[in-house]
Amino acid sequence: MTYQLDRETNITPAGRGRWRADVSPHWNIGENPNGGYVAALVLKSLLAEVPHPDPLSVTTHYLRPPRSGDANLEVEAVRAGRRTSNATGRLIQDERPRLLMLATFGDLSTAGDDRELTANPPPDLPPPNECVARASLEQGVHLPILDRVEAVVHPDIAQPGTLDEAEVRGWIRFGDGRPIDSLGLVLLADAFPPSVFTRFGRIGWVPTLELTVHVRRSPAPGWIKAHLVTTDLHNGLLIEDCRMWDENDRLVAQARQLALLNPAPA
Amino acid sequence: MTYQLDRETNITPAGRGRWRADVSPHWNIGENPNGGYVAALVLKSLLAEVPHPDPLSVTTHYLRPPRSGDANLEVEAVRAGRRTSNATGRLIQDERPRLLMLATFGDLSTAGDDRELTANPPPDLPPPNECVARASLEQGVHLPILDRVEAVVHPDIAQPGTLDEAEVRGWIRFGDGRPIDSLGLVLLADAFPPSVFTRFGRIGWVPTLELTVHVRRSPAPGWIKAHLVTTDLHNGLLIEDCRMWDENDRLVAQARQLALLNPAPA
Repeated sequence: MTYQLDRETNITPAGRGRWRADVSPHWNIGENPNGGYVAALVLKSLLAEVPHPDPLSVTTHYLRPPRSGDANLEVEAVRAGRRTSNATGRLIQDERPRLLMLATFGDLSTAGDDRELTANPPPDLPPPNECVARASLEQGVHLPILDRVEAVVHPDIAQPGTLDEAEVRGWIRFGDGRPIDSLGLVLLADAFPPSVFTRFGRIGWVPTLELTVHVRRSPAPGWIKAHLVTTDLHNGLLIEDCRMWDENDRLVAQARQLALLNPAPA
Repeated sequence: MTYQLDRETNITPAGRGRWRADVSPHWNIGENPNGGYVAALVLKSLLAEVPHPDPLSVTTHYLRPPRSGDANLEVEAVRAGRRTSNATGRLIQDERPRLLMLATFGDLSTAGDDRELTANPPPDLPPPNECVARASLEQGVHLPILDRVEAVVHPDIAQPGTLDEAEVRGWIRFGDGRPIDSLGLVLLADAFPPSVFTRFGRIGWVPTLELTVHVRRSPAPGWIKAHLVTTDLHNGLLIEDCRMWDENDRLVAQARQLALLNPAPA
């Protein structure tokens, strides 16, 4: 069986360091492909060129919104070491770069040092069946991605714009049961509603300028628990932090993004 | 007057998108140039090619340790928009890339939206003259950087390896009084001892694999207050978070790095 994500991030070789892809409309937020989905697509091309299986650190800069359809990917595998490797990549449409990526890869299954620090307890969150479907929160915007990703949020945030905190807590997984691997975590780090939504209400599209995801552990099967919070908004630019745990409460990824809060309607 | 940092990050043009630099030994940690210093040097070449004055988001990947002496810098200014621009760069020595950089630029002096979130209070910290010089903590390793950067830390961390938390709190500024601008913040985000030092004691060099700095505000004149903490160490890889405030307790930068904890001595 092929899962939706794998089919819809299929890439084909097009020469040295070059790949072709078809950006699917199935992961759209309104008219735009979701940023996490397009990052996963570009990441596939980097993974095809490095010797390590897992992204450890992935930084994506969003220059212009990508669109559905044909895209060219350009990859440079810059360094391959024993423990980690590094690569850069970009997505090009209409001869213009839309995304730039810089990533470090490794192998999460390598056993190693047993010194551990884990002062990142997961948030308080009722089980998924007592949470609220993300779909029920989004009147007016068509969200094809909700046929691909199942996301439920804490009942407290069902009314946008009513909380003092800019914070989202919820569960997430792929709709077709695809296991969540390191590539999947990079996508899911940008698949919740923006956390400023709970504080300011319907603020429209919050474009990501830059997203860095650190994958920390391979998740156990099942749902991913996520906590997204914005504690630093200034002059229309915000920092959103995202942490994700598996069902065993193990921290599996951390992410941070710089995003633009569009001007409030007059 | 020319400040030390500006003199020691001087770059000269060497063709389209190419610059030459001289990596100074004055910012070394032992035998290696400090990662923040080399990031600032590469950043200078990107700033020379983009229309905006301030780095907003700077990701640096450290592939191989740079060394003192001649270096080539290669820059690509990928996009110039009204509000932000994007560029990539790399530092090359002996024909091998040592650092890769991907950054977004803007203008911190632009006034804009007045919606604000600032749930990042600075840490408890006595005034600089009641803190302990970083120099007094580091027996045995030669730290030329301490002639360039003045760093003092909370008296509580004077004994490495004695705390449960992997945490450093301190003040920092340039030794020659150079005002701290957005470039300076990128350097200073990687100029304290690693926070795992307080938890595990003398653990040797903690090589940074990747560092992302978000510059949030232009600092007021004076010291920078910094808080560095590692809450996520697993399998020899750690995430360290750094936040910096100016003397008015305004959050001026956030940074996060992925670093390698070398194996414990047998």
